[in-house]
Amino acid sequence: MRPTARDLRPLLTPLIRDVPDFPLPGVTYKDICPLLADHAGFSAVVEELSKLGRGGSGEVSIDKVAGVEARGFMLACPVALLLGVGFVPVRKAGKLPGATYQQSYALEYGEATLEVQSDAFLAGDRVLVVDDVLATGGTLDATTALVARSGAEVATVGVLVELGFLAGRERLGHLDLHALMTV
Amino acid sequence: MRPTARDLRPLLTPLIRDVPDFPLPGVTYKDICPLLADHAGFSAVVEELSKLGRGGSGEVSIDKVAGVEARGFMLACPVALLLGVGFVPVRKAGKLPGATYQQSYALEYGEATLEVQSDAFLAGDRVLVVDDVLATGGTLDATTALVARSGAEVATVGVLVELGFLAGRERLGHLDLHALMTV
Repeated sequence: MRPTARDLRPLLTPLIRDVPDFPLPGVTYKDICPLLADHAGFSAVVEELSKLGRGGSGEVSIDKVAGVEARGFMLACPVALLLGVGFVPVRKAGKLPGATYQQSYALEYGEATLEVQSDAFLAGDRVLVVDDVLATGGTLDATTALVARSGAEVATVGVLVELGFLAGRERLGHLDLHALMTV
Repeated sequence: MRPTARDLRPLLTPLIRDVPDFPLPGVTYKDICPLLADHAGFSAVVEELSKLGRGGSGEVSIDKVAGVEARGFMLACPVALLLGVGFVPVRKAGKLPGATYQQSYALEYGEATLEVQSDAFLAGDRVLVVDDVLATGGTLDATTALVARSGAEVATVGVLVELGFLAGRERLGHLDLHALMTV
């Protein structure tokens, strides 16, 4: 049992802006900039996501927090700092120096490749993966594959917003997946 | 007078990795991943950068923290949360929805355009700008221009590493610029 989840929907709903047809026609983008600009909202999100890295008596139960470029960084870094563990960036191809693992995947719009440094995780590390939006699940699926290839394990996944109608959760059915709000 | 600066060089030096010829031949990249993975190092950096947003008696003296995509986000978000103020992302072109201001600039390698949402700052906001590396100063110069076009003001700039040999500080001579370490 983790610390009890707080219902953040009333706080978050006015702070996440729907932008139709961005970045492509037919896609509705979830703009989290109003949330990031609001200290009460941003800090509540970070506190809530950090609960996913704690066990029943509040002890930290994970070894690393991974965040997915670029908006995942904004949430994952403060979560890692609050939990007192290291942060690992999962970046778009070509951004990380040195030896990396790569994983390609299909996006809601287009295709992309994610990378992680091959020495970022220790074998057996339990990882909390944090991202802003769960859409089709492609990004998080690729991230999970990268963690696994590093010999580590995704303990939990936390996202700010889940787009329920895109059924990403079904694709990620093997994961312990939490969303602060679902639309 | 701000809170006294702490000399973080002995802590930081082993946590910032030099990568020759990345992303292009002749460029030495400062890899901050080992720092991000080290809780003591990462939290010391965030605490030290946050001092730049405080006045002499410790009171918060800025209204917003701006971070530059993408590694600037990793430092600026925790700094904003620690100071209790909002965070504003300065992003590469095409990433931000809605009305934006744009500013093009020359990089150490190549050229790029930065954007900020046109409603991100209020007129008169005092802004702490945070980034990871000061190289030629092009990115921070463009960011300053975007803050000014928003009717706000860059109160202070804080970077983790200053590459002294690239003389970015001369270009930014009009700014209150602080680096946690200079190489």
